[in-house]
Formats: sequence, C-alpha cells, structure tokens
Amino acid sequence: MVEQDDARPGVSRRAILGWAGAAAAVGIAGAGGVAAGRASSPATGAPTGASRVYPFTGAHQAGIVTPAQDRLHFATWDLTTTSRDDVIDLLRRWTTAAARLTQGLPAGEFDPGAGPYDSPPDDTGEAADLAASGLTLTFGFGGSLFSTADGTDRFGLAARRPAALADLPHFPGDQLEAARTGGDLAVQACADDPQVAVHAIRNLSRLAFGTAAIRWSQLGYGRTSSTSTAQRTPRNLFGFKDGTANLMAEEPEQAEEHLWVAADDDAAGGASGGGDTAWMTGGSYLVARRIRMTVETWDRSSLREQEQIVGRTKGEGAPLSGGTEHTDPDFAAGGRGGEPLIPIDSHVRLAHPSSNGGARMLRRGYNYTDGSDGLGRLDAGLFFLAYVRDPRTQYTPMQTALARDDAMSEYLRHTGSGLWAVPPGVPEGATMGTPDGAFVGQGLFT
Amino acid sequence: MVEQDDARPGVSRRAILGWAGAAAAVGIAGAGGVAAGRASSPATGAPTGASRVYPFTGAHQAGIVTPAQDRLHFATWDLTTTSRDDVIDLLRRWTTAAARLTQGLPAGEFDPGAGPYDSPPDDTGEAADLAASGLTLTFGFGGSLFSTADGTDRFGLAARRPAALADLPHFPGDQLEAARTGGDLAVQACADDPQVAVHAIRNLSRLAFGTAAIRWSQLGYGRTSSTSTAQRTPRNLFGFKDGTANLMAEEPEQAEEHLWVAADDDAAGGASGGGDTAWMTGGSYLVARRIRMTVETWDRSSLREQEQIVGRTKGEGAPLSGGTEHTDPDFAAGGRGGEPLIPIDSHVRLAHPSSNGGARMLRRGYNYTDGSDGLGRLDAGLFFLAYVRDPRTQYTPMQTALARDDAMSEYLRHTGSGLWAVPPGVPEGATMGTPDGAFVGQGLFT
Ligand code: HEM
Ligand code: HEM
Repeated sequence: MVEQDDARPGVSRRAILGWAGAAAAVGIAGAGGVAAGRASSPATGAPTGASRVYPFTGAHQAGIVTPAQDRLHFATWDLTTTSRDDVIDLLRRWTTAAARLTQGLPAGEFDPGAGPYDSPPDDTGEAADLAASGLTLTFGFGGSLFSTADGTDRFGLAARRPAALADLPHFPGDQLEAARTGGDLAVQACADDPQVAVHAIRNLSRLAFGTAAIRWSQLGYGRTSSTSTAQRTPRNLFGFKDGTANLMAEEPEQAEEHLWVAADDDAAGGASGGGDTAWMTGGSYLVARRIRMTVETWDRSSLREQEQIVGRTKGEGAPLSGGTEHTDPDFAAGGRGGEPLIPIDSHVRLAHPSSNGGARMLRRGYNYTDGSDGLGRLDAGLFFLAYVRDPRTQYTPMQTALARDDAMSEYLRHTGSGLWAVPPGVPEGATMGTPDGAFVGQGLFT
Repeated sequence: MVEQDDARPGVSRRAILGWAGAAAAVGIAGAGGVAAGRASSPATGAPTGASRVYPFTGAHQAGIVTPAQDRLHFATWDLTTTSRDDVIDLLRRWTTAAARLTQGLPAGEFDPGAGPYDSPPDDTGEAADLAASGLTLTFGFGGSLFSTADGTDRFGLAARRPAALADLPHFPGDQLEAARTGGDLAVQACADDPQVAVHAIRNLSRLAFGTAAIRWSQLGYGRTSSTSTAQRTPRNLFGFKDGTANLMAEEPEQAEEHLWVAADDDAAGGASGGGDTAWMTGGSYLVARRIRMTVETWDRSSLREQEQIVGRTKGEGAPLSGGTEHTDPDFAAGGRGGEPLIPIDSHVRLAHPSSNGGARMLRRGYNYTDGSDGLGRLDAGLFFLAYVRDPRTQYTPMQTALARDDAMSEYLRHTGSGLWAVPPGVPEGATMGTPDGAFVGQGLFT
C-alpha cells in the first residue's frame, strides 16, 4: 500500500474534479438532483484498486453482497428529534451525501478548499486526496425507530415494524454494554482505505447534527470473511481462516433464499405483520455482535485444542474430517477411537446448516482491536456482522445453540449487539438531492 | 487494495516458506542464531507494496526515518518482574521475534499450522498469509524503567538514565488519563497492513507473558505525516495537509542535527549525566501525545477561521503568505490592514523553527478514531508521535508555547502522553536468537 500511496493510481476527488467544480461532475439531473447509477470511475471507466467505485443505487443496498472491503467503520445514531419530517429530511440529506461519497466525491457541493469562505465547508476534507476506495454505505433501521422500550411511537411507525425486527433475546453468557448496543439508525461504511470509511461516517454525523447523535461506533481493521469466491479467505484473531463456508455473491439463488426479504415473507410482514411492511421487500436484516476474544488465553492453548474447538485445521482451514479448505465437512467420519473427527461441540459443526435446519447467513465481520482493558490484555475480537432474510430463523436459533454448546464460547464474550432492518436500495435512475428526491427507506414513510 | 488482496503480490509467510520450514529460511547463524540484515524479500529481492521489507538491524532502529507506513499499532508495557535478568531475557526474545516478524516470518519457529501438536503455536497465525507489508518495530525505554515515581530502582539502572529522559512537565490544558500515559517499555509497530501491525504487538505481548503486561495500546489508521519527500502529504482530521514541513529521510545532515543522539550530547548524558549513558548514542527520543480533536466543533467553524488557525490554506496547504504547499512561509508579510497574513496565534507560526530557536522534530503521527464518547461525539484525533535528539529543547518549549498561545488549542485535548528513550539499532551482522545473542538496548545492560 505504500506504493499505492506514493503514486496512487486512484482517482483523486480533487485532482480530477477540482473541489469547487465537483458538484457538476456528478451530473446534475433536472432541478439540482444528483443522477444515480454512476458505476465506474469517471476518469478511467474501469474501477480497480483505490479507484474502485460501486454504484450507490440498485435493487438492494450496496455493502451486502459487495465483495467485503478491507476496512470498516460502523456507527449507530439515536434520533434527538420527535418530528417525522426531520427524520425524512435527515434520510434525504444522508442519501444525497452517500450517493456522492460512494462515488469518490465530497459530501457536499462546497468543498473544504472552496465555496463560501465565511461558512463551514460542506465536507470535512480529510479524504480530499483519496479515491472512492470501494466505499459502500449501508443504512439500517433499529426497532427503537418504530417504538421505544417504553412503547412510545415517536414517528407514527409502530404499525410498519416487521415482525422479523423483534428485539433479539438475551442469549446465555451475553455481557452486553448499553453503550455498544442498539441505535435508531445504523450505517455500515466499508472501504479499502480506513480514512475513507471514517470520513464518510463523520460527514454523515455532521449532517445529522441537531437531528440525531452518535450512539456508538466501531472500527474494524481487517475483514474476517469473504463474500466473493474471487477473494482469498482472511483470518480472524484466533489465527483461523474465516469465511470459508460463507454465502457468496456468486450464488444469487442462495441469496434469494437466505438473504433478501421477499414480498410475501413473514419477515416483510406480508404473512403476519399487522401493518404494511412491504417496504422491506428486497431488503435484509443486519445482526451486529461485538465479540471480545480472550486472545491471551487462546494463545496458551495447544494447537490440538484450537483445532478441535474450531473443527478445522489452523494452517489450511480444512475440515478435520479431511481434504482441503473447500472440502465439505463429513460430520459422520470417526477416528480410531470411534470419536467423531469433527467434535460434537466444535464451532463448525454447530454453525453448519445441517445443524440449523438448513439456515445460512452472509457473514461480513471484521477484526477489531480497541486498545487494552486495563488488566494487561488487548481488547480485541471480532465485530460480527451478518445479513439474513429473517433473524428469527437464521440467527437466533444458531446463536442460542452456539452460546450453549460451542466449545469456543469459553474464549468469547459478547459485549455489544444490534439488529437493524436494512431496506432495499434507492432504485437505479432515481433523482436524489432535490427537496422531493428519492431516499433510502422511502417506502417506510409513504 | 481489494485487488492487492485478491491477487496479493506480496510474499506470503506461508506460501514461500511453509510454516514448518520458516525458521530455516531466516538463515540460522551458528548455534541457532538468526542472521541479521536481510533487507529484501527472499522471493523477489525487490521489496515493493505488501512485500516491502525493511532491514531490522542498522545503526539506528527502523521506524524512525523509514517512510511513514499507513497504519500503526502502538503499545506500552509495565514490567511485572523485579529481576534484571528477566528484563534482559524479554528484550532478547523480543529482538529475535522482531527480527523475524519484520522480515515477514512468523514470530517463532513452530508456526500455528505445524510444530508440536500438543503445545501452543509459536505464532498466533492471523498474519500467516500476509507479507511483511513494510513492518517496522521500534523499541523504547520509559523513565519508569530507570526509577519508579517513588524512586525505586528496580533494575539497578537509575545511574544510566539520561538527563534528557526527565519526565515531561504538566502542560497547560493537559487532561492526561493515567491509562493512556507512560509505560516502562514501548513499541511502535508500523506497517502498510493493520493486521500485520496488530499481529506483531500481540505476539510481542504473548512473549512478555509473566514478565510484562500491556499498559495501553493505540491504533492509528492513517498517517498524518510524510517522512520522505517521495510521499504525498496526507491529511489530519481537521482536513488539512499534515507533514509538509517535516524532517525528511532525505536530509541526513538535518537528522544528525535534530534527531540522533551524539556521543558527547547532554541527551546521552555525556555532558551532565551522572552515570554512563553512552548507550543512547545513535538513539533518539520518542514523544507520544494522544490528542483528541473536537471535530464536531471544528466542522462548524468557517473555512476562513480554520485557515487562520492553521496558518495555511485548506485545499493546497500553502502558507497564508502565498505560494504553494512547499513555499516557505513569510511571517513578515502583512495584508491590507497591516495584520500579518499568517496570524500571530496560528499553529504554523508558533511551531515553526523561527519561533523555536531553530528547533525541528521528526513527526510521525497517525489519525485515530476510537468509537464515540457517550455524548454523541466521535472520540477522534491525532496520535502525535515525534522523534527528537533532546526533548528538553525540541519538544517541551514548543509544546508549552502551543498550549498557551495556539488558536488551535481550543479544539484539542491532550489525553495521553509518554516519553521513551529509543536506543540505537542492533548492529548489522549481529547474531540474534542465541542465549547470548544481541538485543535492542543491550548497551544499557552492559
Ligand atoms: C468471535 C467469534 C467467532 C469466531 C472466531 C468464529 C470463527 C469461525 C471459523 C474459524 C469458521 C470456519 C471457517 C468458515 O467457514 O468461515 C466459522 C464458520 C462459521 N461461523 Fe463462526 N465464528 C464466530 C462467531 C460466530 C457467530 C456468532 C455465528 C452465528 C451465530 C457464527 C456462524 C458461523 C457460520 C454459519 C459458519 C459456517 C459454518 C459452515 O457452514 O461450515 N460464527 N466461524
Ligand atoms: C492534533 C494536533 C495537531 C494538529 C491537528 C496539527 C496540525 C498541523 C498542520 C496542519 C501543520 C501544517 C503542515 C505541516 O507543515 O505539516 C502542522 C505543522 C507543524 N506542527 Fe502541528 N499539529 C498538531 C499538534 C502539534 C504538536 C503537539 C506539535 C509539537 C509540540 C506540533 C508541531 C508542528 C510542527 C513542528 C510543524 C511544522 C512547522 C513548520 O516548520 O512549518 N504540532 N501541524
């Protein structure tokens, strides 16, 4: 990455566009709207590396089946307003800014180095020389947006809450901190340059000033999953490959089955929901869990024990039943003593679809290290992110089983949690940036 | 970086060496020693990108004039032993591991995927597929190593403490947290891949188990300085270019004058130190300050105000007296009203050598974002790292002036601090990894 930086191949926000002229380059549609759907770098047409650009619009939000980028900044906000119009306004501002930021443009028209000299700049500037770097911004709505813990329906949305967005239960062993849990709104910013991801969250937060305040945020510095078969499987902080058996972008039928909410889904409220929850059709549900890993203890356990806990080899990532990384695990295979080669309490056995009624999920987590804990240990672990069509069948039962039986649990502590309804994308070609322009989650408010 | 990852050009620790055979590849010197001085990737000989490899040995430690890498993991430890031999042992283990890690090898001989099956692996494994990524590990000794706050000389080192390693004074406005300040030992891990930097600190901490415990650690995700004229100037979280006027690797005479401790320096104790402090010759002093930036307030100030505070333009980074980024500031230049174009209380004026008796420093800081503060604001800022020949003349007076007069102070809060003596490097060609092998800081113990 040093060489990328010294002679960065990416499209600089500034070099290409000039800060003052940036607005024009997005393509002003009609009365000042931002035209949607620019999928590639304006300069080269061929998005690669730092200049990789993903379209903001589409049937689904970007950042889900998008090949998992290297870095994460995740944040949640609580609304400080009680006005429904304020919420809509905020989502419109966020949508317009996200459409720009993901294309490598500054958040607003008047950039830090130009614009009215006596006003605050429309963008904070620290990503001014950086390209889009594959930035995606994925927006979610928490249960508290629909009704608070004491049942208050601040925004007249209670009837639109999908049954699938029920609060997660307390799982055995949970040690959740309120300051790392929940939030009315969540945004997952993923990019291949951390400064680009942090910049995006900061500018969204700036735009939320007076309407919503950050509840918590989490940086992730290394991905722990692959979401495309073209990616190499990364490793988590136990040193094991993670993401081998993930739901991949190259499996659209699997995504239809396990990922995207369908019109007649219970998850969209179609079957049993009280109100109209069709707004979730084409959306998905995001589960976040901040899972601290007691790496110091893990590091003192033997290689044998580590592999028995995971159910795979540490080097290759092959199932203990044999083969290589992508060989299917054979849970029936027994060793010389008759004991199963993949132990009964191993993570891979308990998390496998065969133990979970066929349930799968798209995992999209990141390694995190947040300094140390005052007791001489790193505060490090996995910020688990997973997208599912219905958390009630695809997450809750599996987490319950893992919390109870998984030998790995001894080395884990869940310290944060959240569940958000992730609405479908802003349709391609929609006009954004006008007073009545399209915005993320619009279906919920109409 | 996605494309780097998909078809990573770097030398994989594993692919090239095989985990079990890794030890052999470093070049075993004599009775199990690790030969020093491998400066380039064993596979290509041409270190670039992820496979960039810096020599561990040399007259000075790596990680100072080394072109600032993109990511940081900084950690400090407190010794839990009172045995001088334990400290020497630890430094020897750390040196051997650092010589390996910086060359893209696992920390120890028995890698996570091989070695004795019933022992803990010698390396935690999460960087197994990653190349060296320009990793440098820079070791420093805190004042508390020489004598604790109550004057205890645990290791018989008090007479060897250089006068320049006096505790930093309390500066106006300091709001230091004990949990982010000080430490007997410090290691700065810089790399172009954060997982490589975090992996290195974790493995050093693993090797310290029973001898030293982590006091605090800090991740930095984006550099805020250049230390080579070949690098593009990055931006800090105020959105300004940072590192323009830094001491650069291409100025060896400047480094002799401002960076490296000389034999007859007061900083080495030569002139006034009580004991023998020649062990610092060729070393340097590292100042760390965790500086929280109140970005939310900054983002609401006008472009004019921001530029007046810094003393440079936000877009180009040119001095307000005119020109381009690398034009020398003209502090005498006045505007129409006779007011100086570069304000009296601007950061650049106050930090400039002309305001500081010619003092310069090598800045090597990083942007950090550590979640949020519970009040709806990001806990973000600059983890300031600077190397100087003598902190008493090159850091303390400047920080005193800035804390008192700098208009920027309104937006800053110093929450962590530390000063460490960074000894010279392990000499090229030295044998490491044997019971009496060379180690970092050896001069202090002989
Ligand atoms: C820090 C916590 C965790 C660690 C270190 C971890 C680690 C791993 C590893 C090493 C694998 C095998 C490689 C792979 O197929 O990706 C795996 C697989 C898997 N994990 Fe986890 N995991 C963690 C938490 C969870 C949680 C909370 C869930 C869901 C409730 C989960 C669900 C799965 C699933 C579904 C698989 C794939 C199983 C298969 O189809 O073979 N994991 N995990
Ligand atoms: C968060 C805190 C800080 C911020 C945001 C900041 C920002 C900047 C910026 C934007 C520049 C101009 C560009 C450049 O020449 O690099 C600069 C220059 C400089 N700063 Fe800071 N700085 C901070 C803290 C400090 C501290 C604590 C010191 C030392 C006590 C310091 C010493 C310097 C020096 C020596 C220069 C170069 C001055 C020259 O020779 O022109 N800075 N800083």
